Amino acid sequence: MRIQALLPEWLRLYRRDWLSGDLTAGLIVTVMLIPQSLAYAMLAGLPPQVGLYASILPLFAYALLGSSMTLAVGPVAVASLMTASALAPLAAQGTPEYLTMAILLALLSGLMLVAAGLLRLGFLAWFLSHPVISGFISGSAVLIAIGQLKYLLGVQFSSTGVLSTLGGLITHLPETNSVTASIGLTALAFLFFARTHLARLLKRIGVPAKVAELATKLAPMVAVVASTATVASLHLEQTAGVAIVGQVPAGLPALALPLPGWTALNALWIPALLISLVGFVESVSVAQSLAMKRGQRIQPDRELLGIGAANIASALSGGFPVTGGFARSVVNFSAGANTPAAGVISAVMMSVVLIGLTSWFHYLPHTVLAATIIVAVLGLIDTHTLKAAWRYDKADATALLLTFFGVIVVGVEAGIVIGVALSLAVLVWRSSHPHMAVVGRVPGTEHFRNVERHQVETLPGMIALRIDESIYFANAQLLEEKLETLLQQQPGTRDVLLILSAVNQLDTTGLGMLTELEQSLSARALTLHFAEIKGPVLDRLQGTPLGQRMKARIHLSTHQAFLACGAGHSEKSHA
Amino acid sequence: MRIQALLPEWLRLYRRDWLSGDLTAGLIVTVMLIPQSLAYAMLAGLPPQVGLYASILPLFAYALLGSSMTLAVGPVAVASLMTASALAPLAAQGTPEYLTMAILLALLSGLMLVAAGLLRLGFLAWFLSHPVISGFISGSAVLIAIGQLKYLLGVQFSSTGVLSTLGGLITHLPETNSVTASIGLTALAFLFFARTHLARLLKRIGVPAKVAELATKLAPMVAVVASTATVASLHLEQTAGVAIVGQVPAGLPALALPLPGWTALNALWIPALLISLVGFVESVSVAQSLAMKRGQRIQPDRELLGIGAANIASALSGGFPVTGGFARSVVNFSAGANTPAAGVISAVMMSVVLIGLTSWFHYLPHTVLAATIIVAVLGLIDTHTLKAAWRYDKADATALLLTFFGVIVVGVEAGIVIGVALSLAVLVWRSSHPHMAVVGRVPGTEHFRNVERHQVETLPGMIALRIDESIYFANAQLLEEKLETLLQQQPGTRDVLLILSAVNQLDTTGLGMLTELEQSLSARALTLHFAEIKGPVLDRLQGTPLGQRMKARIHLSTHQAFLACGAGHSEKSHA
Repeated sequence: MRIQALLPEWLRLYRRDWLSGDLTAGLIVTVMLIPQSLAYAMLAGLPPQVGLYASILPLFAYALLGSSMTLAVGPVAVASLMTASALAPLAAQGTPEYLTMAILLALLSGLMLVAAGLLRLGFLAWFLSHPVISGFISGSAVLIAIGQLKYLLGVQFSSTGVLSTLGGLITHLPETNSVTASIGLTALAFLFFARTHLARLLKRIGVPAKVAELATKLAPMVAVVASTATVASLHLEQTAGVAIVGQVPAGLPALALPLPGWTALNALWIPALLISLVGFVESVSVAQSLAMKRGQRIQPDRELLGIGAANIASALSGGFPVTGGFARSVVNFSAGANTPAAGVISAVMMSVVLIGLTSWFHYLPHTVLAATIIVAVLGLIDTHTLKAAWRYDKADATALLLTFFGVIVVGVEAGIVIGVALSLAVLVWRSSHPHMAVVGRVPGTEHFRNVERHQVETLPGMIALRIDESIYFANAQLLEEKLETLLQQQPGTRDVLLILSAVNQLDTTGLGMLTELEQSLSARALTLHFAEIKGPVLDRLQGTPLGQRMKARIHLSTHQAFLACGAGHSEKSHA
Repeated sequence: MRIQALLPEWLRLYRRDWLSGDLTAGLIVTVMLIPQSLAYAMLAGLPPQVGLYASILPLFAYALLGSSMTLAVGPVAVASLMTASALAPLAAQGTPEYLTMAILLALLSGLMLVAAGLLRLGFLAWFLSHPVISGFISGSAVLIAIGQLKYLLGVQFSSTGVLSTLGGLITHLPETNSVTASIGLTALAFLFFARTHLARLLKRIGVPAKVAELATKLAPMVAVVASTATVASLHLEQTAGVAIVGQVPAGLPALALPLPGWTALNALWIPALLISLVGFVESVSVAQSLAMKRGQRIQPDRELLGIGAANIASALSGGFPVTGGFARSVVNFSAGANTPAAGVISAVMMSVVLIGLTSWFHYLPHTVLAATIIVAVLGLIDTHTLKAAWRYDKADATALLLTFFGVIVVGVEAGIVIGVALSLAVLVWRSSHPHMAVVGRVPGTEHFRNVERHQVETLPGMIALRIDESIYFANAQLLEEKLETLLQQQPGTRDVLLILSAVNQLDTTGLGMLTELEQSLSARALTLHFAEIKGPVLDRLQGTPLGQRMKARIHLSTHQAFLACGAGHSEKSHA
């Protein structure tokens, strides 16, 4: 009884008829996961087995604590790129220090996520706007694809940054290994074909639509098997110098947890924070959109715990940062996964691979892994959001493009910081230039509208200004300037009415401005009135000196304010 | 005629009866400016004459281009502290490089301000909230006062940061120069007395109130003259080792403009930006509040040009960063300054001092300058804003305190960055947790109110939710969660009405959420309605796929939405 209460809900309530869906999904995801885990380890600059290690325990951990029924956790492209980028200045690829740093990065990231989950900080993920996330992911995808070209062509050089990579590619293009390039480009063409045309072709020859869709997901595995067989049978690694994966140690990872020293902690906490943020945002938005399709819900704070635990588990078993991936989760969903049991099944099968089948990857050529990565990440490039944002809101589209180019030109970490800063800048920029309208009464009604858009009545000697934004530090000054301009235009003014129906907040700076304004107006024999103050704003205003002074001049509605100021009659009308 | 058009308006329209006010104010400000300019040069780590240089040309430049009639420009405490803090890692005090860097800092700062003025970026200054500015100025004041204690006591040690300064003071306390400390503490006590009691005392013996107030401003000059005479007559600099100002070169500064190299530019642009920002905000808020007292107006973009030109003029004449100071401006105002002619008169008198009277400062003891600085900056500590913010808004008060301690503990530059970040964080935090209310109809009216606060009628099968905030990336998710929670609580729901009267903006992320929401609701046979969308939001919404789909379900008023959903009758009522 007690033990059962500790189990996750899906396991306590597990129904036998869910099993076939979970088994199918687990199997298909495993077939995708094997090449991807090897490829993303390579992308992160780590030995291939590290990718396999990161595909076992994290899946168990997420199944125990996560809230999504269909999220597929494990190594993903963007987090792997961020790992490589974070570790590049700290240690050389291939050294034990590099591996240790990668494990520590997963550990720190996991601890941060769990801490955020316990503190219920899931909402922080929403501080990245949708366009900025889109620009970040697309930019990372381009960066990853460019980085893989040298492996695809079998060219060797080292580079820092996208320009030096492109320059290196051009300089070293004559050194292309033609056999490697042939294998890689063939795999690339095949994978593209599988993504774009295979499903249609299969459907045309009578394969059921769903089976055809899922079959295309097996293409990377087909490319892996075919290319490995080719290289092994012709010994192309010796005769033609094709780079291969080589020895992959067999056996499950030993459990151990390196503890970070102060130096490592100091160097890694910012990258760990950024990886946590991006990984969480990426996986929670996938989990969310999949859950909505079935009318299910996810809990962001539980997701923090689940992904955090997955990262700690990854570190414990010698792996690197993991999160919920887009492509595998979608496949998991459409292959019929009902519960995280699908993930557990994947993890068990990955263990079998690690125990007995690692020798099969010996002759797997790097170029095919590069082709797998390129096709996978190009699927992440999102032009739809850009188009929609461009039509709807140029500022959001600009933030998207700046983040995109920021990631490519300045790098993946600077890119995400640029993105967050831009999200906030756009927000502040907008609310710092609020819409304000002088209003008058629609004749015969109690409705008040913009004098510039509607045929309305105004009171002589009165300015009625509606403010369509919260009043706070970034726009308080502008409101004051607007009023002074209106007062200069209408010298006979006696009453100034501010209509606050859209003022959701009034901060200390805004309150200070209104207090000064009231004093300055009354020094000039002008009377300030407020109307339609919202409950929460009024509650706080009443405790202030301004609230006390204004008591008799706070009107429930614009109509009542007009009655009070003009004894109800109107004498002047605008077009 | 042509030349006249180039002159500033105040000069073209100058009236003879303004002259006496300008002369009096110019004279009194000069008497304050002499000790302050020497003291702030010392605070910035520069030779005393640099303070005098920065008090001549900048005043002319501001008089030509600024828009305030009463702002007193010149060296100020906070900008001097920021100069010292910026240059500390770059050059050693007393070296020619240090002086050059200070001049370059003024030049860069001036160019940035002029550029911002030409680009009409004055509004950027409002991104610092009032509480954050208050915390920053108070923190700087404490930092400055602590830094002056060693000069006050005649103790010598070098320190970095406030803790090492305090530690050094305690360690070296036994080395206090008793003569220096006696002079300094006497001056300090006298200046405090002058600030707190002298005006009252003078009034009691029959001096007119205004004259008494202004007389207290002469106290620093009295302290300077008395202490200089004492040191000179007793030769305390030799007999007791009292640190004195020493030789101050006579004569006006040579005009020259050092051009920054790339290294200097790279090291100085961030400090220059921060000094510009803080200097502009400080001076524009003084100018603003003084202008309002006389019903005048200032133009923020003209202020940028004026203060920018003042800094370029300072650099041109071998000075350091300047801005409009709080204390001198208030004195200038109350001494009757009518136009910037008062500043021109100060500048002319400062030139006379530089040409003929610098030898008078030879025996001026450092300890008295330190006392002057301490009394001046303690007047900047603002507890009023903290108290008001604490009562009105704990988040603003917290931002104030964190900025205050940030300046003291981490330093003046980090402090201002912390302040800006906190301003934005508070803004986003607030709007990311919007107030939302389920509403119903007040019986017999067309008014709709919160069901939890009022006795209202609701329609069975309908949820009417009013959102009191713009919908954007940081709160879109929360809105969706709120709705799902309501739907789980009310399983019989058929219609969901969102009342958008307080939604001033809808960004791409918010639009995406509403689009997904509409799809997810209609997949569950629920109908989404909107009511009271604001004009600007509706204009943009209509061009989107969501706007097209919702066309028939966008209602002008909540009342009309209730009519459409419930055929006008109400069947259920809440308490």
